[in-house]
Amino acid sequence: MNCSKNEHREYVGQPLPVFDDILAARRRVGRHLIKTPLLESLELNNLVGGRVLIKAEPLQRTGSFKFRGAANRISQLTQDELDRGVVAHSSGNHAQAVTAAARIFGTRAVIVMPADAPDVKVRKTRANGGEIVFFDRYSERGLPIAERLSREQGLVFVPPFDDRHVIAGQGTLAVEVIEQAAELSAEIDDCLVGCGGGGLMAGCSLAFEAKSPRTRLFSVEAHGFDDTKRSLGAGQPVANKPGGRSVCDAILTDKPGSLTFAINKRLLDGGLVVTDKEALEAVAFAYDALKLVVEPGGVVALAAILAGKIDCRNRIVCVVCTGGNVDPDMFVSALHNRVPRAPGQSDSLPA
Amino acid sequence: MNCSKNEHREYVGQPLPVFDDILAARRRVGRHLIKTPLLESLELNNLVGGRVLIKAEPLQRTGSFKFRGAANRISQLTQDELDRGVVAHSSGNHAQAVTAAARIFGTRAVIVMPADAPDVKVRKTRANGGEIVFFDRYSERGLPIAERLSREQGLVFVPPFDDRHVIAGQGTLAVEVIEQAAELSAEIDDCLVGCGGGGLMAGCSLAFEAKSPRTRLFSVEAHGFDDTKRSLGAGQPVANKPGGRSVCDAILTDKPGSLTFAINKRLLDGGLVVTDKEALEAVAFAYDALKLVVEPGGVVALAAILAGKIDCRNRIVCVVCTGGNVDPDMFVSALHNRVPRAPGQSDSLPA
Repeated sequence: MNCSKNEHREYVGQPLPVFDDILAARRRVGRHLIKTPLLESLELNNLVGGRVLIKAEPLQRTGSFKFRGAANRISQLTQDELDRGVVAHSSGNHAQAVTAAARIFGTRAVIVMPADAPDVKVRKTRANGGEIVFFDRYSERGLPIAERLSREQGLVFVPPFDDRHVIAGQGTLAVEVIEQAAELSAEIDDCLVGCGGGGLMAGCSLAFEAKSPRTRLFSVEAHGFDDTKRSLGAGQPVANKPGGRSVCDAILTDKPGSLTFAINKRLLDGGLVVTDKEALEAVAFAYDALKLVVEPGGVVALAAILAGKIDCRNRIVCVVCTGGNVDPDMFVSALHNRVPRAPGQSDSLPA
Repeated sequence: MNCSKNEHREYVGQPLPVFDDILAARRRVGRHLIKTPLLESLELNNLVGGRVLIKAEPLQRTGSFKFRGAANRISQLTQDELDRGVVAHSSGNHAQAVTAAARIFGTRAVIVMPADAPDVKVRKTRANGGEIVFFDRYSERGLPIAERLSREQGLVFVPPFDDRHVIAGQGTLAVEVIEQAAELSAEIDDCLVGCGGGGLMAGCSLAFEAKSPRTRLFSVEAHGFDDTKRSLGAGQPVANKPGGRSVCDAILTDKPGSLTFAINKRLLDGGLVVTDKEALEAVAFAYDALKLVVEPGGVVALAAILAGKIDCRNRIVCVVCTGGNVDPDMFVSALHNRVPRAPGQSDSLPA
């Protein structure tokens, strides 16, 4: 698969994933996944007046849900494609997911990454055997470089979210959640999922539609990056204003994907938004009450219920914690209850 | 059950727990337990040259394995005993475990706790509905106070480790580990378990003896508190020198229990010891590679393999991370790679 210049346009032609694709993903890559636990905290239940089930996906391989989708995509490459390799552009969770999956399925992975990416992310991508191509984020963009490498070297491009098999892979998370809740004799009333491009949200929505259709579904986004919420309101994908900043780096996208929004538009009950301060308070809460390392962009669903964005009283609410790849400085700031400055962020923060 | 003045003497008369007690514990309290995941990190595997399976018990209810034993003990109280309540002495993980289990089984819990216990532990004990009786640790001891309350109010004393049903409850952890390893088609060559009074170690040993007898078993202790290692060498329980200090507060006991040592003496293959520095480095590693919040005393097994205390090359090694109730200051120090001073600790640390 080669890539056009416009990432979104490329994927409009793909068929939308369906629930059977999620079951197929599970059969295909299930043995490589960690069935991450569904945690419960009496402290949290008391705090919100309901029963909260927390999907602890930072414990997934590579520290985020991204491994599910990348593994499902890469597991379906032909031998010819495996011989050539894959390419992705990411400085974060997708990079680690693609390199780890490539290693498992025996192919090379080239990751296009900004030259000033945090050392920890460079180190982890290399530790998985990934080959890094750096670029200057001030004068270049990552996607065209990945597309050029794809064309020149025949590498298969692995999109971060707007792909049928990536979405289906992410959906395996919700299948686990529904099964784990059933083991607890719990029927989920509301499920909150952090949302960047919307791949995880879309995959989870398909699973809930098939297996727990009465569950209400909500995306959760970072303040200034609430493109999915606003797109739901507009009935079509709308972009964020440029220049926004947030500590929730894992979920900062320009606008919803074409495939993901087509699904989310049909199945979501609403969109929630949290501030940086709320996300960081949730990081500290997860440390204290759940013993889980969660990154700011990975904890927005938990932040939403802690901040009272949805009424949990006498309800069973699932929040998905999506990833835990957070720099120690950011983490320490959260524990100290200080709001650190995001790159380029001004001193004035949303309250 | 009332308590004599000598905690150890009291329990000599109890029958030793056997594997069937562990299976009974699981049937009795299994639905209240979180089946904590068995994690794996490619980074860690590469580092030690073997396959490491990490039991992530900080994700257990109340943040440590202690809930397993306390729940098994309290679940077996008669209605008459439930009407009276339970008492325990602890400022840490056992206190939280007893209060949470008491709440589940509908009885009151009185916790005898030093007046200068960390705020976070007081807060969490109260959040579970525990009633706290403070004492001055410089002029009084907790155990006699707990015994007096037991006599005066008819409260059932819940021992931290030297009890048949507490040991059996802790053993449920190893049953899970062996099943989870089988799901990964992995036979465990070596299992390392952090060891204070030895309750978890003894329970796990009974489970491995029954279900995976070829696995070698090692206790791991903190420098200056290696009573189990030295007792194994001496063939009988020997105490630690008084005045020792360590950041591994969860596993600092005077000497092995009577029941626990009777089991561990028969089944252990050896004892390992780690320094405070090694424990704190493992706290930072668990943050980075596992996304798990682990306290210093809960991470000594992982610390042992990271510090090369045992050869993992081409072996399948299970390390149990036992708990995650750690103060933010200590955690931040570990992330910053600084060794904080334990209460009363001198500046000179074991290397």
